[in-house]
Amino acid sequence: MTELTSEPAFADRHIGARRNADVAHMLKIIGYDSVDGLVDTAVPESIRQQNALTLQPALSEVEVLRQLRELAAKNKTAVQLIGQGYYDTVTPPVIRRNILEDPAWYTAYTPYQPEISQGRLEALLNFQTMVEDLTALPIANASLLDEATAVAEAVLLMRRSNKAKNAGVIVLDADVLPQTIAVVKGRAEALGFAVVVIDLAKDGLPSVESEHGEICGVVLQQPGVSGTVHDQAALITEAKERGAMVTVAADLLALTLIVPPGEQGADIAVGSAQRFGVPLFFGGPHAAYMAVRNGLERSLPGRLVGVSKDDAGTPAYRLALQTREQHIRREKATSNICTAQALLAIVASMYAVYHGPEGLKWIAQRTHRHAATLAASLRAAGIDVPQQNFFDTITVQVPGRAAELLAAAEAKGVNFRPVDADTLGISFDETTTTETVALVAGIFGAEVVSGDNEIAEHLLRSSEYLTHPVFHAHRSETQMLRYLRRLSDRDLALDRTMIPLGSCTMKLNATVEMESISWPEFAGIHPFAPESQTAGWRELIEDLEAELATITGYDQVSIQPNAGSQGELAGLLAIRGYHLSRGDEQRNICLIPASAHGTNAASAVLAGMKVVVVATAADGTIDHEDLQAKIDSNAEQLAAIMITYPSTHGVFDADVRQVCDAVHAAGGQVYIDGANLNALVGLAQPGQFGGDVSHLNLHKTFCIPHGGGGPGVGPVAAKAHLAPFMPSDANKSAHEAGHGVAISASKYGSAGVLPISWAYIKLMGGDGLTEATGSALLAANYVAASLNDYFPVLYTGNGGLVAHECILDLRELTAKTGVTAEDVAKRLIDYGFHAPTLAFPVAGTLMVEPTESEDLGEIDRFIAAMISIKGEIDEIAEGKLAVEESPLRLSPHTANAVVNDSWDRKYSREQAAFPLRNSAAGLRVDKYFPPVGRIDGANGDRNLICSCPPPEAFEN
Amino acid sequence: MTELTSEPAFADRHIGARRNADVAHMLKIIGYDSVDGLVDTAVPESIRQQNALTLQPALSEVEVLRQLRELAAKNKTAVQLIGQGYYDTVTPPVIRRNILEDPAWYTAYTPYQPEISQGRLEALLNFQTMVEDLTALPIANASLLDEATAVAEAVLLMRRSNKAKNAGVIVLDADVLPQTIAVVKGRAEALGFAVVVIDLAKDGLPSVESEHGEICGVVLQQPGVSGTVHDQAALITEAKERGAMVTVAADLLALTLIVPPGEQGADIAVGSAQRFGVPLFFGGPHAAYMAVRNGLERSLPGRLVGVSKDDAGTPAYRLALQTREQHIRREKATSNICTAQALLAIVASMYAVYHGPEGLKWIAQRTHRHAATLAASLRAAGIDVPQQNFFDTITVQVPGRAAELLAAAEAKGVNFRPVDADTLGISFDETTTTETVALVAGIFGAEVVSGDNEIAEHLLRSSEYLTHPVFHAHRSETQMLRYLRRLSDRDLALDRTMIPLGSCTMKLNATVEMESISWPEFAGIHPFAPESQTAGWRELIEDLEAELATITGYDQVSIQPNAGSQGELAGLLAIRGYHLSRGDEQRNICLIPASAHGTNAASAVLAGMKVVVVATAADGTIDHEDLQAKIDSNAEQLAAIMITYPSTHGVFDADVRQVCDAVHAAGGQVYIDGANLNALVGLAQPGQFGGDVSHLNLHKTFCIPHGGGGPGVGPVAAKAHLAPFMPSDANKSAHEAGHGVAISASKYGSAGVLPISWAYIKLMGGDGLTEATGSALLAANYVAASLNDYFPVLYTGNGGLVAHECILDLRELTAKTGVTAEDVAKRLIDYGFHAPTLAFPVAGTLMVEPTESEDLGEIDRFIAAMISIKGEIDEIAEGKLAVEESPLRLSPHTANAVVNDSWDRKYSREQAAFPLRNSAAGLRVDKYFPPVGRIDGANGDRNLICSCPPPEAFEN
Repeated sequence: MTELTSEPAFADRHIGARRNADVAHMLKIIGYDSVDGLVDTAVPESIRQQNALTLQPALSEVEVLRQLRELAAKNKTAVQLIGQGYYDTVTPPVIRRNILEDPAWYTAYTPYQPEISQGRLEALLNFQTMVEDLTALPIANASLLDEATAVAEAVLLMRRSNKAKNAGVIVLDADVLPQTIAVVKGRAEALGFAVVVIDLAKDGLPSVESEHGEICGVVLQQPGVSGTVHDQAALITEAKERGAMVTVAADLLALTLIVPPGEQGADIAVGSAQRFGVPLFFGGPHAAYMAVRNGLERSLPGRLVGVSKDDAGTPAYRLALQTREQHIRREKATSNICTAQALLAIVASMYAVYHGPEGLKWIAQRTHRHAATLAASLRAAGIDVPQQNFFDTITVQVPGRAAELLAAAEAKGVNFRPVDADTLGISFDETTTTETVALVAGIFGAEVVSGDNEIAEHLLRSSEYLTHPVFHAHRSETQMLRYLRRLSDRDLALDRTMIPLGSCTMKLNATVEMESISWPEFAGIHPFAPESQTAGWRELIEDLEAELATITGYDQVSIQPNAGSQGELAGLLAIRGYHLSRGDEQRNICLIPASAHGTNAASAVLAGMKVVVVATAADGTIDHEDLQAKIDSNAEQLAAIMITYPSTHGVFDADVRQVCDAVHAAGGQVYIDGANLNALVGLAQPGQFGGDVSHLNLHKTFCIPHGGGGPGVGPVAAKAHLAPFMPSDANKSAHEAGHGVAISASKYGSAGVLPISWAYIKLMGGDGLTEATGSALLAANYVAASLNDYFPVLYTGNGGLVAHECILDLRELTAKTGVTAEDVAKRLIDYGFHAPTLAFPVAGTLMVEPTESEDLGEIDRFIAAMISIKGEIDEIAEGKLAVEESPLRLSPHTANAVVNDSWDRKYSREQAAFPLRNSAAGLRVDKYFPPVGRIDGANGDRNLICSCPPPEAFEN
Repeated sequence: MTELTSEPAFADRHIGARRNADVAHMLKIIGYDSVDGLVDTAVPESIRQQNALTLQPALSEVEVLRQLRELAAKNKTAVQLIGQGYYDTVTPPVIRRNILEDPAWYTAYTPYQPEISQGRLEALLNFQTMVEDLTALPIANASLLDEATAVAEAVLLMRRSNKAKNAGVIVLDADVLPQTIAVVKGRAEALGFAVVVIDLAKDGLPSVESEHGEICGVVLQQPGVSGTVHDQAALITEAKERGAMVTVAADLLALTLIVPPGEQGADIAVGSAQRFGVPLFFGGPHAAYMAVRNGLERSLPGRLVGVSKDDAGTPAYRLALQTREQHIRREKATSNICTAQALLAIVASMYAVYHGPEGLKWIAQRTHRHAATLAASLRAAGIDVPQQNFFDTITVQVPGRAAELLAAAEAKGVNFRPVDADTLGISFDETTTTETVALVAGIFGAEVVSGDNEIAEHLLRSSEYLTHPVFHAHRSETQMLRYLRRLSDRDLALDRTMIPLGSCTMKLNATVEMESISWPEFAGIHPFAPESQTAGWRELIEDLEAELATITGYDQVSIQPNAGSQGELAGLLAIRGYHLSRGDEQRNICLIPASAHGTNAASAVLAGMKVVVVATAADGTIDHEDLQAKIDSNAEQLAAIMITYPSTHGVFDADVRQVCDAVHAAGGQVYIDGANLNALVGLAQPGQFGGDVSHLNLHKTFCIPHGGGGPGVGPVAAKAHLAPFMPSDANKSAHEAGHGVAISASKYGSAGVLPISWAYIKLMGGDGLTEATGSALLAANYVAASLNDYFPVLYTGNGGLVAHECILDLRELTAKTGVTAEDVAKRLIDYGFHAPTLAFPVAGTLMVEPTESEDLGEIDRFIAAMISIKGEIDEIAEGKLAVEESPLRLSPHTANAVVNDSWDRKYSREQAAFPLRNSAAGLRVDKYFPPVGRIDGANGDRNLICSCPPPEAFEN
């Protein structure tokens, strides 16, 4: 028998190009003999890491699953009655399997290309409608990162909008969630505005004569963390009469029973949609929400789905008012938030679709009934439960006995919330049973006494909600299943096509990486559960942080930031903390290259810095003269430079070490944006070639799926001197939390999805990760070499090579023919492809990033499509067709359009729908027709509609 | 606060019609006030069960999952080294998630409508090609039920085909799997032919002069159950020279290394594809395979996928040679097998697609290397391992120590195969690691000594296999994922549309029912694991059997039969055993109504009975005069009557008790086919209104998904007097096994999917199940009432009502217009529907069964489509269009067809693709285009191609 061939490795499953024939062919087109040779030329010698990346050897899929099961077994599930913003819930299995565990949903990208995103846009519009209905406010966004950051965003919104009282204080009620208070204080400190926490129920609003002066905004919690359902109407009226704005952080399930914030006059409502079917996930990812009154919609942070029309007049969904967002507004943006929690918002919206208003109300009523029964039982046993009105949570007064009762509960598999030595919090939820109530009563030595309603009549809701048909039409599982399938079929995700999005790294999200996230021992853990129950989670997280540190060459990593934008903020706040600790209060200038992602600038502003832009040189690198000039003129105030490496142009700048040195020499810190880390892993380490701090995007380089626009995870990685200023735990007292700032509501941010990145690193090992990087460079350079004759590649580095992506320049073609980059992007849909990145970082271009996961066949199909499109452009250049009547401008083509009996276009139906019908690349029988044609974006912004349109709107 | 509304129940998720508005509307159309009133009229008073169905109260989804986790925890996973036809394997996660856990695959029906089944037909063709390549035989079928029944089918095939030696004996080698021997003997006994088991390696073929005489066929096992890889060439040559045919039961993984049966002259190869990625599942479901030499293809049992062309000349897949099958050939069929193991065959085929030949060979080599190392280690320690050549299994001689070592292994979490007091079997597999080898060696007190090749050179395979591109093109996970998505997108399954198949009960397969089947504590248990490790499984199965007995009114249930056909055989063999036990050897006539499913007749033949057909009366019921005449003329020989209730015509026959009484009076037994049990649950019990025995179809009434043509589960239920003759355990000695006959290879048949039915019954409770039955009757009568004016309903019972399905009679329309029922079936695809049952039980008709799971909206869409089609037929009747040029005859329409620039049909493209474009029912934007047009079936049978065609065949 011949020798065994080498063991098949997971890297072979993750990487698309086959080691033998494919790689050789690709190298030949680029003109290199080996991937090593290509890498050696492309990556500047000056930054190359000296030693191979050393991690544990790669594990098999079986072994990784085994180790994950071991880690899971080290966690302990319990009856989670801690509350404090996180509640156990039932994810309906049909939703778990067909959204959370379905690649058609989780591998989708953010719906920037709305024509191929109608399914998830509808799902997100359902989310907005649900939030609007429940809060009784007219405009809601498509989710925010977590409740604490949502409140922080609301505070910033109040400060932006309330110009008259902008200098005033922000008042937080003492019954607001403690982690929310910590996060808001952190943001306020950096931005230099005043926040005060006051027990408003007891003390009322501070008078203008008090030390606090004018009030800019007020934040209330409904129900409070104590469990009390507050009568907020008078307080809100008073605040508004005094010129303040009011935000209410409200529990969506409670709002099915109690008067909603919109009906009490609140300007803004925020909160978490977690308990609508999203697992506890040890703290995240969960979708937060924000809804605002009319007039505030243009100040709303985050993504907003709106209704517009396509070229046939059909209603069509799209992201509305994108001009608010950081990728356009940069440092003037309403927020630095880029990623949302789309996948989780979709789960929450479908939970409402599945249950409908009557189902949600039933869940809320039963939850309340259980809480009322417990309160009655405890009171009957002589135990003090001070709440007058409550929904699901009570605070129990047990003078001196809290610790003992907490321990007794834990011994019975029940977690309470420890408030102080005399007080325990107990929160019920959808999963609470009568057995749970009896068990809890028993822990207190009480007999069960039936409770009834504990909410005063005037606090009860009388208005309707979720009246739209979508919340009534999918009540059987068959209906739900088909609805989910229909929506996902309307979209293009990675399970059907490559998504060659420059800067977004849409690589494989392997099933083995995904499987463990829905295991109960990971998904069912409360973020504030006792440490004795979370050993597996913490071991996994510490291991992941250590590996990320090894990969990036930094000394410490915190995975707390739950989006790239939050990682940026965390990194910049670390720099800020560092300067302050050295007495350098004046260092508040952040240099940002003109080509940077807009989020950088928005984050710098949030970190209390001033942005100074550095020019781009003709070759796409940083303009060194301008840089030196800006350093020199701001030397005393220089806080940091933020650079992306390889640059947002997809090129390895050979002078990056000099840039870092120059900034360091002036006393500044170097922030290296890790968005493009996929071009570096195993080859170069930001922490070693000049960076003091970076954030990473686990949803790019480390395989967390994009989920249609979130979850994201944006860990921050730093050198030792910044370590003391890394994110602190919002649930710890300031004393315990150290010098850092709390970035997210829970210590480990989007913990629930971290097994994905953990598994990816284990499966690949150092060699596999390094091979992936080389393969990504190979694929990008193969695309660049193959398409350069048709669409010139805008920027290249050493040897004419790009890094892991390439910019195809259409500006000359546009000038000559009128065909825009957008036309090409939309026309690609007819060829079955998701568009590359459009107009970033350079207007009039497309940026292509194939990633290491795409196979040669798929890349070649993409190249064939692009060459075919170039042929269509040439026809316009040759005068055969006007751009307005071309298949480019009139793309994408729906089935309705090409089957229409009254076809009167200048090109054939076949060319419209099957443009490569005569070529090998067009053999796919599996034609994707977009559900709508080209969408009129401007129309949607002019006529803003951000809730579900009535079904009649879709009639012919 | 108002009172809580009643608790939402799972029944509301399972049943489509909403209790309030929908049900009222449907009743109004039918003309009844209540479902109870409808049921009281439809179901004859004479058979109604007196008391409500009493089961445990319905459980919530959460509670069912909790109880399933408890049951799972009572099983004990172990390192499974038992072998004997079952081996641990790794289901690649991408395959697990995107086939086994994907409703697009598991809710599909058998591909009788090939135009909407191209995806799974391609997957099954891959399976056939894989089997053909590995066995080196030219024609393989698309799977059989398990290895033991596959051998039984091979034996029958040899007897049918070898006419010259038909009277001869069947010789089984002693190294054949013991459960196979048991199953073959059971079949032989009923059919009255001789089987002899001989140690052929030692004793050679018996001479013609011996007591055994001529030999009809020989069955060999490769490798043998002992582990020995036999040199079978000489034996096969000798057998063939003596006029015998030869079947080799071969292990597919071994065939990647050793000379395949086809190259040694075998006529037939059979075996299991389980270890190609299909979990152990406590014994099933697994796909068995059968491949034959040229000339035997028309005798091949089971389904066979072939290649033909569609109306545009595009290659298209379909089931070939269906005229062999029991639904057409009835008692003359080649087999009674109806269901295959499609879903599992698809998993196995995709395992080969994912690994490719080099991957499979690597797995085989490593497995062998581990076995060789263990053998070397044991031998070095002085332990006798007698095998000269072996692949993955060795037999270890440990005189007197087997029990002690078995116990020692179990204590270390390892299962061996107990052969006898002196012998243990040890089988390695894909999951074996070097740690396993060391652990096992240690149990024997041996040190690990490296082994090498233990297969003689002349037994090694030199020929290539899996050379087709499909086995080389999907090596990365991304490629695999997209391939699976593309294939499933080509098909219509329950996740996209109702499948209104009369007699097939395509109801919801709820996710919560499905989830547990892939949990390791259920999926990872070997069928021959010690009882101490299977308590959870057995508790679940015993509970399920008891509940099925309660539901059907029988005394005992066995879930062993792994398909309806096997349940029929088991029931008939029980009747046979009963008559024999009373000395009634002459009772061998089975009465079968003309309208019966063909499988009934084929099963009766297999049970050694003679079929006498009873005529159908004009109203569709049994012709009572003819019945009495047949009873009278066969009274002495009457063994049984097989009736389906409600009848295959979908009608409750009011006289069924009289039929049963008449047969009983003549000494016959009554077999009630449970195919239509969905019309009875909670309303009537076959065991109480006259049945002695029934089989059920868990894949119909009890929610096991059809999986694209299997798995099926066909439990047999019987009264107490037949209980001693229920299926026995093939893995028990005849002494232990009792009077019954082993029907399947493992005691619990398709155990792995039983949690589905268990969960369904728990979730519904007695009331929910009864409500489902009423809802099924309601839906069928609603369809009948709504369509009767367009397509007359052929048979009705009391009050003009149907049962759970209705037959739409097209014969008059066909006579008038030429439009056939097939035309209507294919045209429905253009409307987005799977066709109803075509031409069964009456040629020229369509039988519609909406089931309780379809919602009113979907049913109304179907009705609208049918009415629209009637309008299209009317146009032909009015002479506006000839049938040959009509959209009916030219349906279904592909996207290619309607987009084609040279459209020259007599109707518009819009009418072709969007026939309901102007109606509310046509609002769906989610158009399904079939990948191929109408398929030419006859062409495919004339030019039989049953392996993957080359890619060039698909070029334009």
